[in-house]
Amino acid sequence: MQKIGEECGVFGIWSPVRQNLAYMAYYALFALQHRGQEAAGIAVNDDGVFRYHRDLGLVHEVFGKEKLDRLGEGHIAVGHTRYSTSGISNRSNAQPVVVRHIKGSMALCHNGNLVNSLELREELENEGCIFHSTTDTEVISYLITRARLHTASIEEAVNETVNRIHGAFSLVIMSPTKLIAVRDPHGFRPLCYGMCEDGSVVFASESCALDAVGAKLVRDLAPGEIVVADPNGVRSIKDHCGECRPSLCVFEYIYFARPDSVIDGSSVHEARLRAGSFLALEHPVQADVVIGVPDSGLDAALGFARQSGIPYGIGLLKNKYIGRTFISPGQAAREDLVKIKLNPIAETVKGKRVVLIDDSIVRGTTSQRIVKLVRDAGATEVHFRVSSPAFLNPCYYGTDIDSRENLIACQHTNEEIAKMIGADSLGYLSVESAKRLAKGVTSESGFDANGNVASYCAACFDGVYPTEVPESGKDRFEQKIPKEWLERHTKTN
Amino acid sequence: MQKIGEECGVFGIWSPVRQNLAYMAYYALFALQHRGQEAAGIAVNDDGVFRYHRDLGLVHEVFGKEKLDRLGEGHIAVGHTRYSTSGISNRSNAQPVVVRHIKGSMALCHNGNLVNSLELREELENEGCIFHSTTDTEVISYLITRARLHTASIEEAVNETVNRIHGAFSLVIMSPTKLIAVRDPHGFRPLCYGMCEDGSVVFASESCALDAVGAKLVRDLAPGEIVVADPNGVRSIKDHCGECRPSLCVFEYIYFARPDSVIDGSSVHEARLRAGSFLALEHPVQADVVIGVPDSGLDAALGFARQSGIPYGIGLLKNKYIGRTFISPGQAAREDLVKIKLNPIAETVKGKRVVLIDDSIVRGTTSQRIVKLVRDAGATEVHFRVSSPAFLNPCYYGTDIDSRENLIACQHTNEEIAKMIGADSLGYLSVESAKRLAKGVTSESGFDANGNVASYCAACFDGVYPTEVPESGKDRFEQKIPKEWLERHTKTN
Amino acid sequence: MQKIGEECGVFGIWSPVRQNLAYMAYYALFALQHRGQEAAGIAVNDDGVFRYHRDLGLVHEVFGKEKLDRLGEGHIAVGHTRYSTSGISNRSNAQPVVVRHIKGSMALCHNGNLVNSLELREELENEGCIFHSTTDTEVISYLITRARLHTASIEEAVNETVNRIHGAFSLVIMSPTKLIAVRDPHGFRPLCYGMCEDGSVVFASESCALDAVGAKLVRDLAPGEIVVADPNGVRSIKDHCGECRPSLCVFEYIYFARPDSVIDGSSVHEARLRAGSFLALEHPVQADVVIGVPDSGLDAALGFARQSGIPYGIGLLKNKYIGRTFISPGQAAREDLVKIKLNPIAETVKGKRVVLIDDSIVRGTTSQRIVKLVRDAGATEVHFRVSSPAFLNPCYYGTDIDSRENLIACQHTNEEIAKMIGADSLGYLSVESAKRLAKGVTSESGFDANGNVASYCAACFDGVYPTEVPESGKDRFEQKIPKEWLERHTKTN
Amino acid sequence: MQKIGEECGVFGIWSPVRQNLAYMAYYALFALQHRGQEAAGIAVNDDGVFRYHRDLGLVHEVFGKEKLDRLGEGHIAVGHTRYSTSGISNRSNAQPVVVRHIKGSMALCHNGNLVNSLELREELENEGCIFHSTTDTEVISYLITRARLHTASIEEAVNETVNRIHGAFSLVIMSPTKLIAVRDPHGFRPLCYGMCEDGSVVFASESCALDAVGAKLVRDLAPGEIVVADPNGVRSIKDHCGECRPSLCVFEYIYFARPDSVIDGSSVHEARLRAGSFLALEHPVQADVVIGVPDSGLDAALGFARQSGIPYGIGLLKNKYIGRTFISPGQAAREDLVKIKLNPIAETVKGKRVVLIDDSIVRGTTSQRIVKLVRDAGATEVHFRVSSPAFLNPCYYGTDIDSRENLIACQHTNEEIAKMIGADSLGYLSVESAKRLAKGVTSESGFDANGNVASYCAACFDGVYPTEVPESGKDRFEQKIPKEWLERHTKTN
Repeated sequence: MQKIGEECGVFGIWSPVRQNLAYMAYYALFALQHRGQEAAGIAVNDDGVFRYHRDLGLVHEVFGKEKLDRLGEGHIAVGHTRYSTSGISNRSNAQPVVVRHIKGSMALCHNGNLVNSLELREELENEGCIFHSTTDTEVISYLITRARLHTASIEEAVNETVNRIHGAFSLVIMSPTKLIAVRDPHGFRPLCYGMCEDGSVVFASESCALDAVGAKLVRDLAPGEIVVADPNGVRSIKDHCGECRPSLCVFEYIYFARPDSVIDGSSVHEARLRAGSFLALEHPVQADVVIGVPDSGLDAALGFARQSGIPYGIGLLKNKYIGRTFISPGQAAREDLVKIKLNPIAETVKGKRVVLIDDSIVRGTTSQRIVKLVRDAGATEVHFRVSSPAFLNPCYYGTDIDSRENLIACQHTNEEIAKMIGADSLGYLSVESAKRLAKGVTSESGFDANGNVASYCAACFDGVYPTEVPESGKDRFEQKIPKEWLERHTKTN
Repeated sequence: MQKIGEECGVFGIWSPVRQNLAYMAYYALFALQHRGQEAAGIAVNDDGVFRYHRDLGLVHEVFGKEKLDRLGEGHIAVGHTRYSTSGISNRSNAQPVVVRHIKGSMALCHNGNLVNSLELREELENEGCIFHSTTDTEVISYLITRARLHTASIEEAVNETVNRIHGAFSLVIMSPTKLIAVRDPHGFRPLCYGMCEDGSVVFASESCALDAVGAKLVRDLAPGEIVVADPNGVRSIKDHCGECRPSLCVFEYIYFARPDSVIDGSSVHEARLRAGSFLALEHPVQADVVIGVPDSGLDAALGFARQSGIPYGIGLLKNKYIGRTFISPGQAAREDLVKIKLNPIAETVKGKRVVLIDDSIVRGTTSQRIVKLVRDAGATEVHFRVSSPAFLNPCYYGTDIDSRENLIACQHTNEEIAKMIGADSLGYLSVESAKRLAKGVTSESGFDANGNVASYCAACFDGVYPTEVPESGKDRFEQKIPKEWLERHTKTN
Repeated sequence: MQKIGEECGVFGIWSPVRQNLAYMAYYALFALQHRGQEAAGIAVNDDGVFRYHRDLGLVHEVFGKEKLDRLGEGHIAVGHTRYSTSGISNRSNAQPVVVRHIKGSMALCHNGNLVNSLELREELENEGCIFHSTTDTEVISYLITRARLHTASIEEAVNETVNRIHGAFSLVIMSPTKLIAVRDPHGFRPLCYGMCEDGSVVFASESCALDAVGAKLVRDLAPGEIVVADPNGVRSIKDHCGECRPSLCVFEYIYFARPDSVIDGSSVHEARLRAGSFLALEHPVQADVVIGVPDSGLDAALGFARQSGIPYGIGLLKNKYIGRTFISPGQAAREDLVKIKLNPIAETVKGKRVVLIDDSIVRGTTSQRIVKLVRDAGATEVHFRVSSPAFLNPCYYGTDIDSRENLIACQHTNEEIAKMIGADSLGYLSVESAKRLAKGVTSESGFDANGNVASYCAACFDGVYPTEVPESGKDRFEQKIPKEWLERHTKTN
Repeated sequence: MQKIGEECGVFGIWSPVRQNLAYMAYYALFALQHRGQEAAGIAVNDDGVFRYHRDLGLVHEVFGKEKLDRLGEGHIAVGHTRYSTSGISNRSNAQPVVVRHIKGSMALCHNGNLVNSLELREELENEGCIFHSTTDTEVISYLITRARLHTASIEEAVNETVNRIHGAFSLVIMSPTKLIAVRDPHGFRPLCYGMCEDGSVVFASESCALDAVGAKLVRDLAPGEIVVADPNGVRSIKDHCGECRPSLCVFEYIYFARPDSVIDGSSVHEARLRAGSFLALEHPVQADVVIGVPDSGLDAALGFARQSGIPYGIGLLKNKYIGRTFISPGQAAREDLVKIKLNPIAETVKGKRVVLIDDSIVRGTTSQRIVKLVRDAGATEVHFRVSSPAFLNPCYYGTDIDSRENLIACQHTNEEIAKMIGADSLGYLSVESAKRLAKGVTSESGFDANGNVASYCAACFDGVYPTEVPESGKDRFEQKIPKEWLERHTKTN
């Protein structure tokens, strides 16, 4: 089933005592698995010695007991989960990136995407740098290392580097003695900070990873903030705070994040209930039952039901055993595949007018099959409601929302789409509502309930990009180096 | 998390044309994966040649593309999923059991448990039979084969065998030219029959497997019924129907079966909604939100909410990536494990009186941890409601409901249990209600909405066993041969 | 490279004290790996409890540390290596066969092939027996078990069974308290018996396995002998000794056995030196160097060199890293494959007249490529000498010497073969010499140096079969059930 | 069994037509497997697009059919096998090193070891370079890339780099359009060049890899030579030729190389025969048989036999199935391990005075066990002859000949060693003879039979190092960064 994918989850822990951080990182990565299923990696810093392991696969595939035991104990650890793309040599793109250097080793985990990485890379290559991977992260690690040559500390080097890199980056960086977290000045991706009872400091993409290791959420990093944890305590560098208008990705609330996470002070689950509520207000319909497409449509369905007064029902069952290695039948049998993953509960929908809530429509093919399933199970009407606005523009900040030709909403009107997917009616969440998902945000307020500026990135919906966009044009995405550029590089003798 | 386990899921398909039945069986087994995660197997009959593969592991682990392609096309196929126990030689217990014999090969899949298998086995051994496994299924395959020596057809041999075996058995049997399904005269385990558009006949433990292969449910087999599919069509042998009072396991409705399945004419999802309803009536409470423990507590929670008028909420999130290979931390860290698998959504429960619904309590340790999670997330009160009665007796019919010492309800009163698990109140479903989960069953009716006799096995709750029970006593269960018996066998010179 | 394959290696150990027999069996199986690379298995008897593991693969693939540790300690153990055939369900043919039975469990390992197994199997099936595999071994295990029902001890049951089974069988059998070894009355396959310093009794197909576990060779079992080891000591049952004329397979000396083994009192290495000697006498030639095809042509090459006075050289190097998983290039590139496995040492053969010794010619294609290799490396003449006679007849006693159409010598004269493989001359060992490979055997003597009757099976060369041959005709071999028979079995409804 | 290990095997092929070079490289790496069993890698250049795969494991473990097919066709390919060390993160040290750079991608394979790599690395790091691995190869790839920024072609950059790197390096380098081979000015490691019939140009560490892909050996690269193959043909750059006195490692002839290879015009097999000959002259003894320890003692044993007139025998059999995954028994059972790997052929040695030839003695423990095996098999005397001189000094040029405390000859006299290993006498090859192993080299000549200067590196025997040695002292070896240095790097904040 075609879904939008995000790039990564990051994690870091600094402990006042030597302990088994490999297992801590392992549990945290489980909690962040939804942010990336391509690869996983952990690096443990045991008194200056960096042990690490990273490979393609899910967390439990990459790490067995033996591997975790070898990583073992230490004072600092970082971990990373990476989104699934394909290709034979992707192992070299797995993170953490580990750099061995005379000024101190460094392990670096990155969630996001730079908009000026190609320029930076060319500049670095012209100065004699060589690259082993195709990731932005290697560019960042170079910049920090080179800044480190003339700065007094790693945090100064990091601070200097933030001036040079543009775009989305939530970073967790481990040096021989320090753990450093960085959130880009726009705050595109979430990054929070928590504390364990034993005084350990924890950074993670989402608060659900703090829960997994028994840490209490302290707060999210402010956009532009750098936080350093070392034996001298935790301190914050705010030189880059306030440089830009905050631009947290609204799709984090709608789909990417786990509902049990709290981002920038607002519960993701609650944001989705609100999405459902807004949908009910914006696209009301007479119906008998509201059902969600599991897993991420369920919260919005409950919100829709509560707002509309139409009963909430459990109408689709997801087969929890189907994973990446599932063997799909041939082309002809494609329709069956959705049936195997999702099965309707006939009693819930039979003879009823159904409101069906999903989190998004990408190409429309999956939506069409789901509507058919529900109708075949006896629904008399199917009203499709989408808890996000329509995708109309590519994303340059770390997701794979793709070029226009793959986005159904770029090619068709809502009426056409409703017809194509076989729904009796179709309603998308409005962009304005999408920007009000955080608690307390109203159209007038300008702030959320926690006092944060209520300003978000919804570029994929409204085309308003908070930064310059890469010169290589709309077709250039995520880690994929544009063909012309690649050719220029490889064809030189 | 300690859960009750069932023994198996069975599947069979007879096709009028040669086609790729290996893939059909594969999809069906995915749909039956919840009935057994220890082992899986498929046998394909290609014009009399039996190809089969079975191994320990989940369906997608046992079968890759290469293995399925080798099984390939045929006219008949059977498949099996088996519940997870432990032990080095269990591979030999995987099914289908494939027997090569002069009267025709046979592949046999079994869900259930015989109560007289030890007696039959001793008798067979004394007549010169040898056994490779410790399963009831091998006993059954011997009886059929030996009956086959003096009967005119395999179905006669099967019919004769039903006289000799007592207990729970839903069987799917493949001969060189026929597919045969058998449900024991008590009907302990479900077994249904469906039809594809191309005329293929399908048997499966649950109707959700029919959905997976695009078959329409025709009906469940009646208790005692034998159905034969071959080129002459489908015919039913009812010699054993009506021999016993029907005794479908009520725990199929409560926990074992998938909510999108329909068993004996009643929707499992609806049965669980009813369980929640009954619970609300039997154990009402003043509260602010009703939440279910995923996955199987969700339906009952919705039923409770609807009946009571207390809002339904999503309060616990299950990490969908945690599978069998998850590495648990040491003994000390046990509490963390539940946290990693289940995480509360604080916004749903914070400052609220919570009704928490789970499908069962076995030892109580998991329940205690979940209550603590919800309380730590801010719930002011936690009222635990269980959508099944309390387990008080072992099961001899194919589940691992164990001896009394492991069942918390055998040792403690409800008040004690509530205190032990930290709940403000505790309520179990009554046994009477448990027997009224099927549609239309009332305490007076005697029939369900489909006209079936409303008589069920609830022996694990009420101790009323529909059959004699094994002489070897209450401690003897499921495939585990009692120690004395094993010694008698192995110590003989 | 096309080679003749043997069926199996067997091993058993009885220890007066409980010790880690799993590892002992593992080392022994390594030493017997050359007798079978398809599958391996070990069963350990720990005070009546049988733990076992068997699977497809080489010994080191089937058994890792974890698996061996689970098998663990015990008083008796048996092990088996099996020759490589193909097919998806072969795992069920792996040995030891483990039978659970009221008269005591039994594990059985078999090397050889029965000539009346189909008849016995039909008889057993008609009496109600069912079969899970297609092996002779399952037939034997049935006969022993059934005999056991009316005999006072397992050894009596075994003794009675020897009356019923005809053909080649070297068996090692483990009961709850005894270890029993049986060599068929013809003595087709080797089976020896040794003793460790701690009093452990060891049986193995070849003496090299005794060396591997630190046991001293006591002697070979006599044809027809049954030896029992238990707490009462070691005793021999000789009821079947002398029933037949001894018929050890001469190809054991020529190719199957390891050169460091001693069979029936004669060193295999020495037998091969003698083969080379005889060859030099029977097919003398003027040449500059004698080289052998590694590994099994080396000993005969040295014998040829010594007898002829022509210098021995090392002329072909075998790549020791090429195993079963080596990926061969497409059909066109076949010639390369031999080059990758074998490479000539040019300095040894350049400008020289070369005598090239190999142990056999089957289809001739490999021989042709090797001759070409040597010639391309600069040899001026290549005289091919084969340390066995020409294969002219199928074998029914446990090897895969195949039907006549695959044997080049059945279709062509020696001159034609020499031309086909590109040799300047060709000489086979005479059948008479093949029967004089054991120490001290002369054409007149009738006895070898150890006083054994000098009588051997050379049926594959001379067509003189020591037993009746299967009615199913020359095309019926080795575990492969004839098609007609299979159809009769599977097509019955 | 403790053996000296070499670092690597390298391979490269340039083809005039696009073809399946992945398979070519695969076969070549099989032939070079003996030079490194830790890791393997292949990179294929398909019109500028570099596809590569590398991992820990043997060639056949790293590359399955699927992986090779993905690498696919191209015009240029390089491959590498790497010597086995241990450690969790070694995968990042696998080769080829693939560098993506604006001036063109590059893949680099290296056999050898630099003596100034730490100095170079520090210098590079101080200029802002970062390192992902701990290999010399990454240092070299940096130097070439940086030189490339100001040179007109990759070969000029390579030529410039040769000025900066000191020590042993045989390199194969692939650019988008060229294949370049480099042998260091001392010629420590072999590197040869061949041609296929289709015009493909092949470079490899040893000529046996040319044989494997059907290429004819043209010649070895001269020390200091750079050879470039591209569409304009093959051309040689000799700027660095003659800079140093040739210093081919004599241990290549004695042990590292495959006997079917020809290095610098001399056959390795013949060199080993000569080693045996010299040994017979230098350490004559009265004996009945000469046997070699397989595999690499066999050639020298034959040479000794021929020179001495004592018959050559096959006295030890190596179990060919024992690979890396073999599970060794506990410490106590160590003696057994040698028995399982090597078994004496009693008939060869029983009652005889035996000359036993091995290629080297490192710690002496293995030698002691082998002598015991032979003696236990009945040898009356065992005279140990070693076809190399005694190791007295560490090697800095790409082998793991270790610090003095692990070299038995540094601590003990020959008499002591003979006693320790249980031999009746002991003789090492003289260093002078070791330098005369190539064809035609006599003590006076100064040239070998091919006209090459007869000058070799025997530093591990005589302590005469052809280059400066690393400042970090004798304990610094092979890829292992010295502890102080590592600490300096990692402890900086």
